[in-house]
Amino acid sequence: MLIEGKNQVEAALTGDATIEKIFIQRDVNNPQLVRKIKDSRIQYQFHERSAMDRISKSKNHQGFIAFATDFKYHSLEDIIITAQKTGSQPLLIILDGIEDPHNLGSIIRTAECMGVDGIIIPKNRAVAVNETVIRVSSGAASHIKICKVTNINQEIEYLKGKSFWVYAVETGGVNISQTNMKGPVALVLGGENTGVRHHTLKLCDGVVSIRMFGKTNSLNVGSAAAIALYEVNRQRESK
Amino acid sequence: MLIEGKNQVEAALTGDATIEKIFIQRDVNNPQLVRKIKDSRIQYQFHERSAMDRISKSKNHQGFIAFATDFKYHSLEDIIITAQKTGSQPLLIILDGIEDPHNLGSIIRTAECMGVDGIIIPKNRAVAVNETVIRVSSGAASHIKICKVTNINQEIEYLKGKSFWVYAVETGGVNISQTNMKGPVALVLGGENTGVRHHTLKLCDGVVSIRMFGKTNSLNVGSAAAIALYEVNRQRESK
Repeated sequence: MLIEGKNQVEAALTGDATIEKIFIQRDVNNPQLVRKIKDSRIQYQFHERSAMDRISKSKNHQGFIAFATDFKYHSLEDIIITAQKTGSQPLLIILDGIEDPHNLGSIIRTAECMGVDGIIIPKNRAVAVNETVIRVSSGAASHIKICKVTNINQEIEYLKGKSFWVYAVETGGVNISQTNMKGPVALVLGGENTGVRHHTLKLCDGVVSIRMFGKTNSLNVGSAAAIALYEVNRQRESK
Repeated sequence: MLIEGKNQVEAALTGDATIEKIFIQRDVNNPQLVRKIKDSRIQYQFHERSAMDRISKSKNHQGFIAFATDFKYHSLEDIIITAQKTGSQPLLIILDGIEDPHNLGSIIRTAECMGVDGIIIPKNRAVAVNETVIRVSSGAASHIKICKVTNINQEIEYLKGKSFWVYAVETGGVNISQTNMKGPVALVLGGENTGVRHHTLKLCDGVVSIRMFGKTNSLNVGSAAAIALYEVNRQRESK
């Protein structure tokens, strides 16, 4: 799906559509919008006007064309209601700013394998479910509910109100294998460069860590997610 | 071979790779690492960013590029002898034909974090430790012993003779959380497309599986490795 025109593309940046990439006309005079696009971390390319005109369907692109996928997100309420029907304790993951589509795709695949009920991702400063993510997830993106929210911290408060235990998976916390994960749990995992952000960390009920033995200071976020989800399942299955 | 990025170059300074020289971006703001490089007595030169960008292959050099001689592999004997000196039970992984350098790099990083004593990879039909692998490993490739062998199956026989329990991590086996991993263990993980090959599978002492709950039929090999290694450590740490 193409979204064309400056206002349309600007609206799409903060809307529900999942933008795969944005083409910007090389000589367009709109530094504010170009800045917003750069800040959004959505992939973008500059093209000559002639190329833009060829791609445009509306013939009124004003220098901006966004390519959107039609991935269907769910609401957090929907995720919780569906989870409660499964008969087992709900298990959610909250991704606080994953930027690499390979990491997001890999986490979606792992989460689906591990029976996660839903994944919460932020609207801004994070990669959305684009074609690369779907491909890397090996199709798992179609089998798991993903929810895109404006404010991660608000949703954490909401989940706590719904009796979830919200744990950040980060270094410096309590060993995850010694933390009870049998109740309704939401695990928060941070972005590749930032980790779980300070304010988010403070909102969590606790910080759980994976015991490390080497010189490398941290696991890749996908590996950390896999281990944390496995541990939750292991505890729930054990007597 | 180029090693690029601040973490990667820093790790290489204390690792096994042989560094010939290091290029440092003239205006880089990282006095600690520059000091370490100077102290290391490795030859170094300052260059403009434009020159660094031209040399860089990753396009993410962060101001530091090291020129290393080819990756130094270890022998399996060396790995076993070093492992036996650590005082804990040896833990090895055998990769039966990983083709994607991102997967190999990610597994190396995880393995180093999880205290693995050595990684065995095949000479043929698999990716070797190249620049991409080292970059993705976040420098961990310099801190873990990797052995490249002609015949995986022969080495499995050799390890069994040395009292290792060799387990393939594959679907259709015994739940890994119910398999005793406290002795000397070597875990065999298969390639992205082939899994652990039939003949290799037959040589193993057993097949262990990670309990799955979704519709996607398999975990990414990196996630499976992370979970399996975590489970070995969890069992060994628990009373």
